[in-house]
Amino acid sequence: MSKKRPLILITNDDGIQAKGIRSLIEAVEPFGDIVIVAPDKPQSGMGHAITVNDVLRLDPSPLYEQYDAYTCTGTPVDCVKLAIAEVIKGKPDLLVSGINHGENSASNVLYSGTMSAAVEGAMEDIPSIGFSLLDFDADADFSASQWAVKEVVKRALNGDFPKSICLNVNIPQLKTEEIKGIRVCRQAKAYWKDSFDKRYDQFGKPYFWLKGEFNRDDWREDTDIWALDNGYVSVVPTQFDMTAYHTISEIAEWEF
Amino acid sequence: MSKKRPLILITNDDGIQAKGIRSLIEAVEPFGDIVIVAPDKPQSGMGHAITVNDVLRLDPSPLYEQYDAYTCTGTPVDCVKLAIAEVIKGKPDLLVSGINHGENSASNVLYSGTMSAAVEGAMEDIPSIGFSLLDFDADADFSASQWAVKEVVKRALNGDFPKSICLNVNIPQLKTEEIKGIRVCRQAKAYWKDSFDKRYDQFGKPYFWLKGEFNRDDWREDTDIWALDNGYVSVVPTQFDMTAYHTISEIAEWEF
Repeated sequence: MSKKRPLILITNDDGIQAKGIRSLIEAVEPFGDIVIVAPDKPQSGMGHAITVNDVLRLDPSPLYEQYDAYTCTGTPVDCVKLAIAEVIKGKPDLLVSGINHGENSASNVLYSGTMSAAVEGAMEDIPSIGFSLLDFDADADFSASQWAVKEVVKRALNGDFPKSICLNVNIPQLKTEEIKGIRVCRQAKAYWKDSFDKRYDQFGKPYFWLKGEFNRDDWREDTDIWALDNGYVSVVPTQFDMTAYHTISEIAEWEF
Repeated sequence: MSKKRPLILITNDDGIQAKGIRSLIEAVEPFGDIVIVAPDKPQSGMGHAITVNDVLRLDPSPLYEQYDAYTCTGTPVDCVKLAIAEVIKGKPDLLVSGINHGENSASNVLYSGTMSAAVEGAMEDIPSIGFSLLDFDADADFSASQWAVKEVVKRALNGDFPKSICLNVNIPQLKTEEIKGIRVCRQAKAYWKDSFDKRYDQFGKPYFWLKGEFNRDDWREDTDIWALDNGYVSVVPTQFDMTAYHTISEIAEWEF
């Protein structure tokens, strides 16, 4: 009983040179054949951005010569679109994105290029998973993340991945043996409290740099934030119908 | 009985010089005091992107000297964050975004800078509305859109705007008198079928430009696409909890 190895598309938002994508490649390599299309530079915070007013370049990557690996000049979502239309010329069996250097729990899913790549995969009905480690360090320890990647990918490839969704997997900043388990959660209702670092350049002109604090204010046990704070890997099944169904009848009463 | 005029924040994704934002300003001006923070250049397709690895500039706009108007070097979501933190230093009573030159129905809501600005407003619990006209022309006729803006804004300011949502309003390419009405809808399950225009530069190197066809394949009467195809303005209440609640129990059975 021989079975074709699954084709796995790998991308990220920190760029192809990041340690996170290298760790992801190592972790999923045993599960299938690999195609890599990743940004040629950091694309953090790009959300679901696509390049519509400019051209894109796609170049073979010297970093991963043993694989079918390319860098793309665009966003993570551009990478997914180019991989499907021009590299694979079809759909992979699995799309994995990450491992992101930094948390993508709660409302971060909207800003995250890592997760937007996975959401784009879900829109194409490809089983898709975004992985993020709660550590922004460029040299972060991804060993617990690699354990989580293997646990989740193993099950994602068993053939009953739900249609038109992706998974948002976040890994706490712990050693593998300290992780309590993997919990399926909902996206916490927790947001950034924004502020800007305002400084003046050498010409006396102001410039602004986004900073802000993450308000972890939805602590219930069914949330990703609770899971992460309590030593679990969080898995949030994620969809892309943004309709606020619960308010349709209320707005319909506005009597346009 | 005197009442304070509401403070209305205006942004868009086509840039401050677009006809769409000029049409929006004209339409909402009777309803309140206006603050404008808009991108200094086109930012179409930027989705929920934010600028995290670079500085932002905020400059008074000579285009709209009669208002508190600024251009921002960042994305539409950056504009909203800067407007709240640095211009208004608080929250407006209403946020309006657009009028976009081009459709933002169905899954376009994810790619749209216009709608992401409105979603950012919703995350800040500001009544927020994105407006889009089904016409990409830089000199499109926005008169029916202006009618729709007034109809929707009038009701949005009546004080019972639901919490933590925004409205995605699309206007068909029709004359005002041809519009059949305004329908509250859900986001259609309709997606882009992507392809790329592949050409070669003067050095023989390939480049790619995203094109694609919009698959309007969810035609049911409760969708925004049906409304637009049948001469109605579509209004989709839009939220930002992307949890796929219907699959949580299924994924939980994977027995991690």
